[in-house]
Amino acid sequence: MKLYEFKAAPNPRRVRVYLAEKNFSIPCEQVNLFKGEHKAPGFLAKNPFARVPVLELDDGRTLAESMAICRYIEELKPSPPLFGRNREEHAFVEMWQRSAEYELLFPIANAFRHGTEFGKGLESNQNTAWAETCRARALAAMKILDAELGGRQFVAGNEFTVADITTMVSIDFGAATGAVKVPDDMKHLKRWHGEVSARPSAKA
Amino acid sequence: MKLYEFKAAPNPRRVRVYLAEKNFSIPCEQVNLFKGEHKAPGFLAKNPFARVPVLELDDGRTLAESMAICRYIEELKPSPPLFGRNREEHAFVEMWQRSAEYELLFPIANAFRHGTEFGKGLESNQNTAWAETCRARALAAMKILDAELGGRQFVAGNEFTVADITTMVSIDFGAATGAVKVPDDMKHLKRWHGEVSARPSAKA
Repeated sequence: MKLYEFKAAPNPRRVRVYLAEKNFSIPCEQVNLFKGEHKAPGFLAKNPFARVPVLELDDGRTLAESMAICRYIEELKPSPPLFGRNREEHAFVEMWQRSAEYELLFPIANAFRHGTEFGKGLESNQNTAWAETCRARALAAMKILDAELGGRQFVAGNEFTVADITTMVSIDFGAATGAVKVPDDMKHLKRWHGEVSARPSAKA
Repeated sequence: MKLYEFKAAPNPRRVRVYLAEKNFSIPCEQVNLFKGEHKAPGFLAKNPFARVPVLELDDGRTLAESMAICRYIEELKPSPPLFGRNREEHAFVEMWQRSAEYELLFPIANAFRHGTEFGKGLESNQNTAWAETCRARALAAMKILDAELGGRQFVAGNEFTVADITTMVSIDFGAATGAVKVPDDMKHLKRWHGEVSARPSAKA
């Protein structure tokens, strides 16, 4: 197998952190989004939607979408479980992972692409009003997560899962790009962020 | 169990079509988004993100997110399989389901919310330039799906799966709201749409 990814983008980092938690290694090749390498014909043949990461399987087929890649690895190497251990855990991990994507990662990514100088290179129709709407939405989601994390250790329960990975990567990307930052008074979210950031996988 | 949903919204329809394919019945309660019932304190206690559908379990816990709900039911009643039959199918169904959401459903929902008169009631910061960007993105995704469906019967392979459900619901929602329509020259996408629309589940 081979992983096409890009060090500076949030979605590939989700897969790298996941692989580090699994202690599972896959050879990687960089696809430089800033140089437009994801829009080259060779890469479009691997993923017509022009997104990284993409996992190339040994038979040559290519699997896109971070969570599809992680699920594939989860079935290859189930331990430690990062999608839950039984039907109910599977469902609630999926719920929180998806909520983190939809309510946090997507708005933060849009606040970056549409609201920062650096994002201009990626977004031909930059829309600063949309960036502001997304920034407000990400802050509203952070407030909900802060309240939730007052009652449990991790995003989806009492164990570290892919829901923590998506939430951590989103928050770090918002901070690194200056698009959205966690307000200082969100103590539970900050407590959780300190804990997940101290895991060796966070360096991935 | 009890399902909180809203007949006019696309995400609840994904779950209704899924349940119809499974021949699995759950009592439903309508949450009228046009009347703001999803923002009432009683509903926010079930889902702080104020979205439908929500599945209330017998122990009172509430599970949000359409695909989390469908996965929960998939483990309760595995047959017929709508998320694939083995590791590789699971991964590719997940890939196409997520691509349909991210590249089709989200842009179409945004083209509706930000670009139509009716959407104004749902979106306090309506942004018509963003609606246009989303409309173009949905059309680009349709073109990719049209090419893919020239080579196979269903979105993720040769069997009907949740990837077909998300794609069908997205396209129908775009057409019903006038936000985005499938261009007439996309013959493969239209062939596929005719076939999935003829299934009894499409009426759900």
